[in-house]
Amino acid sequence: MKKLALALIGITLAGSAAAQMKPEEAIKFRQSAYATMAWNMHRIKDNIDGKYNKDEVIKAANVIQSIANSGMGALYLPGTDKGKGWVETRVKPELFKDKEKVGKVATDFNREANEMAKVAATGDAAAAKAQFEKLGGTCKACHDDFRTKD
Amino acid sequence: MKKLALALIGITLAGSAAAQMKPEEAIKFRQSAYATMAWNMHRIKDNIDGKYNKDEVIKAANVIQSIANSGMGALYLPGTDKGKGWVETRVKPELFKDKEKVGKVATDFNREANEMAKVAATGDAAAAKAQFEKLGGTCKACHDDFRTKD
Repeated sequence: MKKLALALIGITLAGSAAAQMKPEEAIKFRQSAYATMAWNMHRIKDNIDGKYNKDEVIKAANVIQSIANSGMGALYLPGTDKGKGWVETRVKPELFKDKEKVGKVATDFNREANEMAKVAATGDAAAAKAQFEKLGGTCKACHDDFRTKD
Repeated sequence: MKKLALALIGITLAGSAAAQMKPEEAIKFRQSAYATMAWNMHRIKDNIDGKYNKDEVIKAANVIQSIANSGMGALYLPGTDKGKGWVETRVKPELFKDKEKVGKVATDFNREANEMAKVAATGDAAAAKAQFEKLGGTCKACHDDFRTKD
């Protein structure tokens, strides 16, 4: 768990691509990853609120899971608490300081994203709804602490 | 194959989320998905050019695979050959007309993205390099035909 947390908060191994990445690129890539997940969260929600299509939810959950497991922490390069990717970053400086808390929100997110993909695979719409709420809660937890209001 | 192509070029089923999405959102989401894949293509390339880390390549390949399989065609809403997501879209109008060609480039991309994930799982660096070249070729094929030069 702790190893995962450390990995997630961007303690990158020697040779990691992120170490050579420009700050603006790192910010752009993380904004892109979050927006990609947002698209797929919307898709799951639409399926829960409307006619449930099992395959749609599986595809969306798999995208979120793969990004959650991809090691996004590596994109939080030192100095990127300010800067412009597509747009100005909304990250709070606290993310770069409070390693324990970041590790916790990241771990929670990772766990619930994995579970969402598992539940999606069953086709159980009620279970998907319940898990979607849990997953959304982990997104919110990180946003509340580490992202400024619009 | 044809069914996949039709799905990929955005013939959405009743109730699909994309049908209710605003044009600007659709453009933003597809720009985000492509940038997320670009990040992960860079990661694979860095591992091929430098010290090969099997787990890094697996994570990156899984992201690309999940997005390739996610049904991005649904984001090419009618009328979104123009418009601004994060930035102005670079898609050419031909993408909305040449269904056969789009179906082919999409199918090729999907196939090679799936293969990349399979090869990544083996940890074979030489095979990963070869497959990365093939995958990159499918990205380029679509860009050459359907995306304007910067």
